[in-house]
Amino acid sequence: MTPTPAPVPWTDLAWLGEHAATHLPQQLRLRADGPLVATIDAEIDRLRSLADGAPGSLDLLDLPRARKAGMGATVLDELAAAGEEAYALHTERDADADGDAERLTVIGGGDRGLLYGFYAVVLGLAPTQSADWVVRSPQHSIRMLDHWDNMSVHPVTGQVERGYAGGSLFYEDGELREDLTRVAHYARLLASVGINRVAINNVNVHAREATLLTERLDSVVRLAELFRAQGITVLLSVSFASPIILGGLTTSDPHDETVQAWWRRAADVVYAAIPDFGGFVVKADSEGQPGPFAYGRDHADGANLLARALAPHSGEVFWRAFVYDHRQDWRDRSTDRARAAHDHFAPLDGQFDDNVVVQVKHGPMDFQTREAVSPVVGAMPATRLAVELQVTQEYTGQQKHLCYLAPWWSENLRFPFGERDAPTMAQIAAGSAERPGGLVAVSNVGDDEFWTGHPLAQSNLFALGRLAWDSDIDAGTILDEWIAATFGPAQTVADVLRELLADSWQLYESYTAPLGVGFMVRPGHHYGPDVDGYEYTPWGTYHFADRDGIGVDRTVATGTGYAGLYPEPWASVYESVDTCPDELLLFFHHVPYTHRLHSGKTVIQHIYDSRADGYEQVLQLRPRWQQLVGAVPDALHERVTTLLLEQERSAEEWRDQLRTYFHRASGIADETGRPTY
Amino acid sequence: MTPTPAPVPWTDLAWLGEHAATHLPQQLRLRADGPLVATIDAEIDRLRSLADGAPGSLDLLDLPRARKAGMGATVLDELAAAGEEAYALHTERDADADGDAERLTVIGGGDRGLLYGFYAVVLGLAPTQSADWVVRSPQHSIRMLDHWDNMSVHPVTGQVERGYAGGSLFYEDGELREDLTRVAHYARLLASVGINRVAINNVNVHAREATLLTERLDSVVRLAELFRAQGITVLLSVSFASPIILGGLTTSDPHDETVQAWWRRAADVVYAAIPDFGGFVVKADSEGQPGPFAYGRDHADGANLLARALAPHSGEVFWRAFVYDHRQDWRDRSTDRARAAHDHFAPLDGQFDDNVVVQVKHGPMDFQTREAVSPVVGAMPATRLAVELQVTQEYTGQQKHLCYLAPWWSENLRFPFGERDAPTMAQIAAGSAERPGGLVAVSNVGDDEFWTGHPLAQSNLFALGRLAWDSDIDAGTILDEWIAATFGPAQTVADVLRELLADSWQLYESYTAPLGVGFMVRPGHHYGPDVDGYEYTPWGTYHFADRDGIGVDRTVATGTGYAGLYPEPWASVYESVDTCPDELLLFFHHVPYTHRLHSGKTVIQHIYDSRADGYEQVLQLRPRWQQLVGAVPDALHERVTTLLLEQERSAEEWRDQLRTYFHRASGIADETGRPTY
Repeated sequence: MTPTPAPVPWTDLAWLGEHAATHLPQQLRLRADGPLVATIDAEIDRLRSLADGAPGSLDLLDLPRARKAGMGATVLDELAAAGEEAYALHTERDADADGDAERLTVIGGGDRGLLYGFYAVVLGLAPTQSADWVVRSPQHSIRMLDHWDNMSVHPVTGQVERGYAGGSLFYEDGELREDLTRVAHYARLLASVGINRVAINNVNVHAREATLLTERLDSVVRLAELFRAQGITVLLSVSFASPIILGGLTTSDPHDETVQAWWRRAADVVYAAIPDFGGFVVKADSEGQPGPFAYGRDHADGANLLARALAPHSGEVFWRAFVYDHRQDWRDRSTDRARAAHDHFAPLDGQFDDNVVVQVKHGPMDFQTREAVSPVVGAMPATRLAVELQVTQEYTGQQKHLCYLAPWWSENLRFPFGERDAPTMAQIAAGSAERPGGLVAVSNVGDDEFWTGHPLAQSNLFALGRLAWDSDIDAGTILDEWIAATFGPAQTVADVLRELLADSWQLYESYTAPLGVGFMVRPGHHYGPDVDGYEYTPWGTYHFADRDGIGVDRTVATGTGYAGLYPEPWASVYESVDTCPDELLLFFHHVPYTHRLHSGKTVIQHIYDSRADGYEQVLQLRPRWQQLVGAVPDALHERVTTLLLEQERSAEEWRDQLRTYFHRASGIADETGRPTY
Repeated sequence: MTPTPAPVPWTDLAWLGEHAATHLPQQLRLRADGPLVATIDAEIDRLRSLADGAPGSLDLLDLPRARKAGMGATVLDELAAAGEEAYALHTERDADADGDAERLTVIGGGDRGLLYGFYAVVLGLAPTQSADWVVRSPQHSIRMLDHWDNMSVHPVTGQVERGYAGGSLFYEDGELREDLTRVAHYARLLASVGINRVAINNVNVHAREATLLTERLDSVVRLAELFRAQGITVLLSVSFASPIILGGLTTSDPHDETVQAWWRRAADVVYAAIPDFGGFVVKADSEGQPGPFAYGRDHADGANLLARALAPHSGEVFWRAFVYDHRQDWRDRSTDRARAAHDHFAPLDGQFDDNVVVQVKHGPMDFQTREAVSPVVGAMPATRLAVELQVTQEYTGQQKHLCYLAPWWSENLRFPFGERDAPTMAQIAAGSAERPGGLVAVSNVGDDEFWTGHPLAQSNLFALGRLAWDSDIDAGTILDEWIAATFGPAQTVADVLRELLADSWQLYESYTAPLGVGFMVRPGHHYGPDVDGYEYTPWGTYHFADRDGIGVDRTVATGTGYAGLYPEPWASVYESVDTCPDELLLFFHHVPYTHRLHSGKTVIQHIYDSRADGYEQVLQLRPRWQQLVGAVPDALHERVTTLLLEQERSAEEWRDQLRTYFHRASGIADETGRPTY
């Protein structure tokens, strides 16, 4: 007799808990072959144990069986063309049953497609009452989460770099955890929103983690098994210096034959153990990581070196474009970190092998609350790209402040690189069938009880998956999906959560660094205000505030020329203070405090007002949340309450410090008479 | 056969190496009883092994034997009255010998006195050719070094808090080192300059170090043995919460009888193991350390609690007056950290038991490069005091910048608390025979090859000992003593070192925080410039710079009232911008940038000039040092060269950041046209 498994803690189920289980129709038929069928079977059992399902039925089939059953050839052809990750879905009223029972049919274009269709039903993402077949397929072929997890705990940065949700889910005491139960749950959560790749270690590869490629490969094998069960491919972050660190060679020069041979052998060994291994993620020549520059080679040389070792196994290289001089001289205003990725990578367009994906942060700086879009995205038409987003809230409140990021990601993803009908960031990232790209994001989970530290930050993980599936889904719609799947249909809960989260990113922006200037955070940990924190440092992140004005002149006419890296109309829009959007004004221009925004306010009064008003709005959050006592689990309610108190404290600090700093600098009184210090 | 001991590395000998050995006369006679006689014997053997001694003879006697030998009753009576740490010394030309041979006689007033007299001869501190007997006794009864060493390595602060010379000399891997050879050398170095007490662990007492009082007492026993051999008493830093942490009690309330009993028992156990144990050092109710405030008791209650446990064993409590609100609201300009120690302690004068020594930092802030003297020193006539200095260069260049601190300490120690003939800080600290006080200092040594990271920072350790012996010795004289003992008589070496070190503190001041305003360092580690680093923090260390002016108004008339805590004439001198010394102007006053100093320059031009001039002077150091290639050991030369390069880099950063910050703030151009950025 096998012992009854302990019930899964409700927190571990996130959006795949009781409320999701109620979406699963009571009558189920699963007719399919393939490696993920057992997964779907197990998920059904698990959900069944949590709640009674919905009235009605769900028929799950694979494509061959659907053909055999004589289903419509048109939809099946369409499905087959849409690929193995697609699914077709049909909903009809069940004439035989009472009430609102439905008969749902899901056909998988392939193994993963069937799984995604199943989860769509569970999460309530299936359209109800649609008379026709609907075929759904992901916009982005690459839908990847990067984990910045270390095996060891770093004395300063902790175990997960920029992690705000406890330690690593994967590692403990320097090794892979013995008990990987939560990783299995995590894989389910990711698959349910369509994630298909996970990189399992920090892009800053330290000595111990480097050995995942060699002596600790068995740890990768174990993780790959768990993720494989949910259709997710595993990738490794590797050090460009691996041939030296691990192989005992004296060089890692891409043109050196022994180096090339070393990488080929390393890849062979990995693929012998993990035939569906995804490939490598590489941060090279960035913030101290080794790279090809040491040998006078460029990033194409570097990326292609690894790509050629992986190619025989169909593996891919994700090569990060986050390359800049982090030892910049703050005295030198001609160097502009915002230009760096473009300057390094745009000239290499067309030189990367087919199995190289250049991974580009959505903005030119570093995941700021507000910054321009990265011009690199528009500058490499002959290169496979993946746009990198940051789910972990490094600069956006560190999972202490509410900050639902989907509206910000959407704004970036919808940005057209050119005139109105030009392809958007999302379209460029998606690429073509021949040269597919996608989205990559830095995960926000850890071994925290609520996965994400702030329980409501789960919404960002959910939204990332949804936007990677389809970047056109409205951020508000995604929020509603997440609320319903996680908290059920109760109206008050939905109302309060929508109020708290929907505009939380703009609220966060309102009391932190103003008008796109960025940073102003405490150096190192990046939490809390410090206007001059990075001003006189080598990091290239400056605001240039003085007694007269503030902002970075990135114009072509008088500044760093960065604005000219965009296609028209943007180059012109950004070049002029008259047309530059208010929210990016200080990103592109240095202006006097008395400069009048399109909003009608002066820059200084905007700084004063929005920080004070933002704080007042933050004070509205906790009373609203208080209304949910008893309506959400107590432990979750308490955690959020505690964090809202911290958000209030921190927002007040932001308000007072920024208002005071700029009053001291400008000498201009706040028109409203509110105090500075 | 015992194996020949390995030769001591020359670096371990510091000022007790070859050059010291040459001072030891060739003919020696040691006639004395007492526990330290064996020590002197061993030191003689060791020095003999290093170098041939000087021509002449040295006669070392204890007081009884001197009397028996019929030496002059007057001097012997004077010596007896001067106490057991005193010695009498007589030098005469040896008529029988050729050349400059001398006959030296040293009589110890007691055990330690004989040792100190011996070392005075070795270090060349004995007056030459004095016809008469000289009796020397220390000005300060307490001459103590505090070690901020932890047993474990702290992930952020390292093993030695504010240590810039590697790890702890004492501890390794969380325990006392097995091999304590270097500690024995260290004890010799300290005794040779008259140190008589050492506190062996950080005043911020962490969990592991707390157990030195109980389960790890054997470690204290071992250290006490080594230091005892050099006449040095060992003390422990203890946590005020020890009864809870170690004793399992629920309180550490000084009025609780179980708490009192716990401390008595703890003291009994310590003294059973270490009969000459010195006592406890306590940081209470300061920067998060536990203390009596939690129970509504004051610092006298807290200190007397421990004092009464120690009193039966003649132990002492060193109770630190470094108490302030480290969670101050930066918005609140009425709270003044500089007042804190005075506000907490002055009202308690007379309430401390006889075996309590209140340990007061020399300034009211925190070991700044420049700050006022602490008014506490003048405000507690009925309390035993020890003035605390910081040998480790936390705010004075962290043993990367040259900063010979004796001139700064002298300036403080000579400060008269009142009109011209009023007792100085040193005189007040020294106390009386009945209520002796003294000097305490935070050590700057670690397990670094050169003891102090910067080899020339050894001069500060040497000088601290000398000033604790006699606070009237001229800082330049001490520097000459240290140079000669450490590097020998070579004129070039002496000239260069004097040039590099003599004014190095004022040079450091010239390019760092201006005019007494203090801080402006990077938060946390305190190295390098960050003008606003502490401006919007809870630490109480502000400059209040805005577009118009800078400085802290501590006047009675319009400020925090701090200036009024001094006796006249100082209260009046500091109260007025007209009489306040330039170097403390911004410590006491908020003035416009255009305010004219006594020097004739405006504040802003002073800021511009001295930072630029200071940097230019720093550039003169390395060429000078270069002249000593071959004249000092190569490894030492290289280390200093490397550090001089860092000093140049850092001084340039200070120059450019401060000049730029204040140009941006003031808008006033540098008259000399030198650039800002």
